[in-house]
Amino acid sequence: MSVNGRIWGVGIGPGDPDLITLKALKVLKVADVVAYPALEHGESMVRAIAAQYLNRNIEEIVISVPMVADRYPAQKAYNKAAVSISNAVENGKSVAILCEGDPFFFGSFMYLYSRLSNQYEIQIIPGITSISASSAELGLPIGARNDLIMVIPAPLDELVLRQKILETDVSIIIKVGSHLNKVKRVIISLGLIENAHYIERATMANQCIKELSEIKDNHAPYFSIIIIRRSGEVLEL
Amino acid sequence: MSVNGRIWGVGIGPGDPDLITLKALKVLKVADVVAYPALEHGESMVRAIAAQYLNRNIEEIVISVPMVADRYPAQKAYNKAAVSISNAVENGKSVAILCEGDPFFFGSFMYLYSRLSNQYEIQIIPGITSISASSAELGLPIGARNDLIMVIPAPLDELVLRQKILETDVSIIIKVGSHLNKVKRVIISLGLIENAHYIERATMANQCIKELSEIKDNHAPYFSIIIIRRSGEVLEL
Repeated sequence: MSVNGRIWGVGIGPGDPDLITLKALKVLKVADVVAYPALEHGESMVRAIAAQYLNRNIEEIVISVPMVADRYPAQKAYNKAAVSISNAVENGKSVAILCEGDPFFFGSFMYLYSRLSNQYEIQIIPGITSISASSAELGLPIGARNDLIMVIPAPLDELVLRQKILETDVSIIIKVGSHLNKVKRVIISLGLIENAHYIERATMANQCIKELSEIKDNHAPYFSIIIIRRSGEVLEL
Repeated sequence: MSVNGRIWGVGIGPGDPDLITLKALKVLKVADVVAYPALEHGESMVRAIAAQYLNRNIEEIVISVPMVADRYPAQKAYNKAAVSISNAVENGKSVAILCEGDPFFFGSFMYLYSRLSNQYEIQIIPGITSISASSAELGLPIGARNDLIMVIPAPLDELVLRQKILETDVSIIIKVGSHLNKVKRVIISLGLIENAHYIERATMANQCIKELSEIKDNHAPYFSIIIIRRSGEVLEL
């Protein structure tokens, strides 16, 4: 296939390099350039996952993303990366943008997508989400028949979290990080501690499964998930 | 690795054979037996997706599932299949149970899991869901930052559908099938027709994307999904 000037958003999966798809591998084989986010002066988790699949002579665009709550510095980094990717494409090169998990599911990729998709066609290669990885590693089915499932970001207000958990059968609390205590308070006050299951960095080398009631820290890693199965047919299987 | 007597639930992905993971391929390479659901006197969609990856001498357990609303005949089929799988395992064989999409996400695999997981350890290989496939093919990001995402099965009552769509930023209506008209009525009455995106059989050979307002049929295929982005940061990217 002619791949000149193409852009892909490539889902690399949740952490285990074996959880990449054949489709993603085929793209990495033909791409001239890979682009990926990295911490300032630091490592790139997504590059580490894909490392063994990258051609030796592939060009790399590193998107150095400042980890600050303020949005402006990150916006600047994505603006700069969009220009670099655009330049590569205008020079006839094809660019694979690496994304942890799935590109269209809470990934920083979307900040590039919004900057580039007006000008260029971008093909998305879906990836295994951290949610699928978490449910597999916990041995915990998350939906059956007519169950409602809600993905709830932990940074939301305590009252919102409480309300949303009650509006669905199964809640998947993502981005737990520094919100661990707040989320635990909500779960305990709802009497759902026995229904809640916690996992850190599912399928990464340092994956960890803990009893929520036994965690003493106030903070969890950013890549931690709590699955709460409050009701639904999945509980009756 | 010793694989004698092992059982895996293997996510095969949404339809495109390239959307299988390396991990699933490795399991299919070593398994003695594959088990999969098929329609009575009919085809097995999941076997067709995985066909090119099956060893020529692999044993096959076909789970012939009657397509009737009544649960009893299907329960009988899964009971029978659980016995066949159990017999294979007791004879030292390893069994890969093939699952469309992700094993723990609305798959019929869960009826086998509930019958076998008390007796045997079952390893789950997560798969690309039809939701990730649909958002990729539609070119439609489904969640960013603090967005709420809800998976809503279409068979639910009209008033429930209406209420749940209003309780979340992004709704993913699954199992549309014969509920198409009901779902359309709800979407139109909420003034969300411009926010709703329809896709049939994402990444399968006969995938089809249509304008919801232009569909004249009362029925959609079972494997059709409607993504409604009502609010949230994903709309502001």
